Amino acid sequence: MMMFNDALRILIGVTLLASTGDALAQQRSKPIQHDAEHYMLLAQHGEKWAREDKVIGAKLAEVRKANGGKRPNILFVLIDDVGFGEMGDPVLNHVRGYTTPNINAFARESLTFSRMYSEPTCTPTRTALLTGRLPVRSHMLEPKIVPPEGTGLHGDEVTLAELLKKEGYNTAHIGKWHQGDIAQAAPHNQGFDTASYPLHNQATFNFMTIESEEDRLADNVATRKTIPNYRMDKNFRPAGWVLGVDAVAGEDAHEWGAEAGKPLDYAYYDALNERYKKQVIERLNQLAAEDEPFFLNYWPQIPVNFTRRNRNFVTANGGTWVESMKDLDNHLGDLFAALEATGKAENTVVVVMSDNGPMAQAMPESGYSQLVFRGFKGDTTEGGIRVNAYVRWPDVIKADTFAGDIVYCGDWYTTLATIAQADKHIPRDRVIDGVNQLALLLNGDGYGRRDYHHVYEGPHLKATIKEQFKAHWPAPGSPGFALPVFDLYRDVKETKPLLATGMWSVAYFPDMRERHMALKKNFPDRGETRGKPYEGIAKLRPETKALLKYYYSARKAAE
Amino acid sequence: MMMFNDALRILIGVTLLASTGDALAQQRSKPIQHDAEHYMLLAQHGEKWAREDKVIGAKLAEVRKANGGKRPNILFVLIDDVGFGEMGDPVLNHVRGYTTPNINAFARESLTFSRMYSEPTCTPTRTALLTGRLPVRSHMLEPKIVPPEGTGLHGDEVTLAELLKKEGYNTAHIGKWHQGDIAQAAPHNQGFDTASYPLHNQATFNFMTIESEEDRLADNVATRKTIPNYRMDKNFRPAGWVLGVDAVAGEDAHEWGAEAGKPLDYAYYDALNERYKKQVIERLNQLAAEDEPFFLNYWPQIPVNFTRRNRNFVTANGGTWVESMKDLDNHLGDLFAALEATGKAENTVVVVMSDNGPMAQAMPESGYSQLVFRGFKGDTTEGGIRVNAYVRWPDVIKADTFAGDIVYCGDWYTTLATIAQADKHIPRDRVIDGVNQLALLLNGDGYGRRDYHHVYEGPHLKATIKEQFKAHWPAPGSPGFALPVFDLYRDVKETKPLLATGMWSVAYFPDMRERHMALKKNFPDRGETRGKPYEGIAKLRPETKALLKYYYSARKAAE
Repeated sequence: MMMFNDALRILIGVTLLASTGDALAQQRSKPIQHDAEHYMLLAQHGEKWAREDKVIGAKLAEVRKANGGKRPNILFVLIDDVGFGEMGDPVLNHVRGYTTPNINAFARESLTFSRMYSEPTCTPTRTALLTGRLPVRSHMLEPKIVPPEGTGLHGDEVTLAELLKKEGYNTAHIGKWHQGDIAQAAPHNQGFDTASYPLHNQATFNFMTIESEEDRLADNVATRKTIPNYRMDKNFRPAGWVLGVDAVAGEDAHEWGAEAGKPLDYAYYDALNERYKKQVIERLNQLAAEDEPFFLNYWPQIPVNFTRRNRNFVTANGGTWVESMKDLDNHLGDLFAALEATGKAENTVVVVMSDNGPMAQAMPESGYSQLVFRGFKGDTTEGGIRVNAYVRWPDVIKADTFAGDIVYCGDWYTTLATIAQADKHIPRDRVIDGVNQLALLLNGDGYGRRDYHHVYEGPHLKATIKEQFKAHWPAPGSPGFALPVFDLYRDVKETKPLLATGMWSVAYFPDMRERHMALKKNFPDRGETRGKPYEGIAKLRPETKALLKYYYSARKAAE
Repeated sequence: MMMFNDALRILIGVTLLASTGDALAQQRSKPIQHDAEHYMLLAQHGEKWAREDKVIGAKLAEVRKANGGKRPNILFVLIDDVGFGEMGDPVLNHVRGYTTPNINAFARESLTFSRMYSEPTCTPTRTALLTGRLPVRSHMLEPKIVPPEGTGLHGDEVTLAELLKKEGYNTAHIGKWHQGDIAQAAPHNQGFDTASYPLHNQATFNFMTIESEEDRLADNVATRKTIPNYRMDKNFRPAGWVLGVDAVAGEDAHEWGAEAGKPLDYAYYDALNERYKKQVIERLNQLAAEDEPFFLNYWPQIPVNFTRRNRNFVTANGGTWVESMKDLDNHLGDLFAALEATGKAENTVVVVMSDNGPMAQAMPESGYSQLVFRGFKGDTTEGGIRVNAYVRWPDVIKADTFAGDIVYCGDWYTTLATIAQADKHIPRDRVIDGVNQLALLLNGDGYGRRDYHHVYEGPHLKATIKEQFKAHWPAPGSPGFALPVFDLYRDVKETKPLLATGMWSVAYFPDMRERHMALKKNFPDRGETRGKPYEGIAKLRPETKALLKYYYSARKAAE
């Protein structure tokens, strides 16, 4: 019944527990603060949702009982930069000229979402997953590419890993992190017992290598030693940043596989990815052998791959990223098989999703182009933010089913916390955008709990969604009356704004925005979190120290 | 073994039977004449194909044996104007805001094609299905809309129905025909024992009604009695054309449900469609009860629907055509259930496909827009000509499988004729573009027998496809060296022509075109077939006779 009470408190905002003076009990007794639009729905559906949650609570108690009281494990696979339709669907596979049979088979065992919204880029999507909040609230606005960054996720943000740890979960992160290079932002300081991750994003590993210079694949960033004319600034095309690190909670992180003085090459990226592939299976086996439930966050860097070197092209498409989809698919097949072999698959919730649209702008070599929706990574049209997503939980979530409900990636935070009975630890002093979507998971299509989403690009609210309608907010100062509103069902590409026929929603959207913005007066967005880059990383290489020197001299001039 | 021999003769062009002086035997002894590009493949794969066909022949003989020697029945459902992705896929269903559960379930029991090419519009696609030939060869260039037409499919064209009749099939056509309104073009004169069909296309039934005038849905064509100013020509917006007809081979056709002097209304269209729905199930039951195998051609007019009147909108999308997809899906569910109930489903090949891309130009009311490919009905980009297609044949074609091979809709002609052991009747005196795709049906993905397709828009060759490459032919007189060639895997929307990187195919395509055109010297395209409109239709209404009078006065002036 605790389950149900918790859900009820969150959902209909009723304080059921008397205040005891105990901080946790107080926190638990207070409902989660959601975004303004949520309360429009809660007022209309709160009682129905409470009834549903009672049944769901009983069902989950049964599931735990059937698993000897053990809470479900969670394996979260977040795939980088794969556009909607590029995996999971054999027909669209053929359209593109490659296949993802293992992901397709996984989708058949799962609930498939057709309206999962990510953020437009990788850093904010990851922040939303970790914090359950629109990333603008924690100022995690967009990916930082140029190292060192000196910024990142604030230590006061409460991650899903931190919630789960409080309920005894073993936690591990492997792969892309991209939440900054300051100590407080590191996964092992944000709730993960162990972490193995690249400190920066793939551009550094792939683009800024000796081969990329030779191949002239990226001559704006490569070291360009061949054409030194007029070069004044050694740090415009720097070197020596921290590469992959291994970390354990409470300890310094250690760089892996980096040699002082050795320039970065593609081989390192490949080795890092091969290592993550092996690590995730090793870690899965270790975690599954423990008594405690586990949360394994696996966020591979593949399929992102800029180069054609040393690769064995096998698809008809032959694009560099498309080819890596085969690699990813084979690897996920291995991972799913490994999970099966642990005997713990039945009691493990597995999520597979992409983090944003395809990064295919002006890059036909990737093998991608726009497919179903309009726009790319970074755009707030559906092409940038609507992603493939699947969740499998044998015997609990009905296999081979499909949901058309709106889901925001931040909903995983609240939903998975509730599955793990850790929702009581969700902080009550801030806005949590993620709503509990367990009813959708368990009851299926039509049981979603949101009909809205606010779409940010960095600090700017660029679009707002309600049902099938989507407003593209004009730049400040532009005329407001003829707000372009699109019907996403009929006008999938968002090219035909509704005018007279969309008058109602054209007039309604500004009110939605106002409510959303008004809530920020009580719960203001966090400012940028700054700190010392690479703090907490042991034994920096000489070139890394040199890079830091440049960094601090420039910072000093700026501050 | 007859099966194998026939296939071998077709495929590798070897005369196995000695000439006997018998016309049929002579015809059988001559290989089918395919288009030029076929022979590039035949020279490379002929022996392998012959080996495959031997196995397939044995398999089909087994199937016939298991069915008491009876050849398989054929049910061919051709859906009008439904774009790629608008049926069969639950995820894309959700993207569009409606579902097609019965078609989706059928797809799961079928082989799904992801690269089926139709013609850009309904009339030529139907011609290709009926004749196995590019419609330009029989001058069936584009849909005729304005009645009377006075033209249509030539009686010397040999339809699939005529092939099957020679092997004892009972044949029936129900629904849209759109092959002209002259006697020789009529289904009951082209191999169908019985036919129930509208003499013209849906525009007449839907657009040119009293309600379309009142609703101003189509004020360029409606009768416009409300604004008579400056109207001089009563026949610009005519009335009185022949509506739906019932016909039996060897007899005159009879108009159904038309009353002299009564203006056409939406109710007639609805009644016609309801009648076809009932008729197809009645006819199916009749045909299934006979000893002979059957060929039932069911080409519904739905989902094409221009009006919102008297309709019960239930989808989230709410478009006029999208709503009719629900109607179509329910109806096909009934049809599939009826087939099951006959007990003959196991021995029945069922094809479901669309006839061309969506007719959604400037018509958001339809509920459609572009989805995966670029272009609409009438276009020769993939959006106009690439359609959903499924084939089910329990125990013979593996269920829930997917093929990425190129298939042309005309391939059904040769393939279904071969299944029915009627391929020996395929005429040898003309080019048959349809190739036998049985290997693809039985062996699955990768066993297709074409890597090319020539895409016509009416009389003009507009594009040529080879593998994933597609050339858009420039208008005559345009520069030829920089032929725009597109990679359909990487550039699904055909927006980024390959230049240097596509040099090989840019240079190869003109040779393909030359071979294709050179063959026409020996096998020239037929000229337009003209005749007396409405000949062979009993008891024309007075307004129909008046319409014919206008028609003949205009023709006389022209000739």
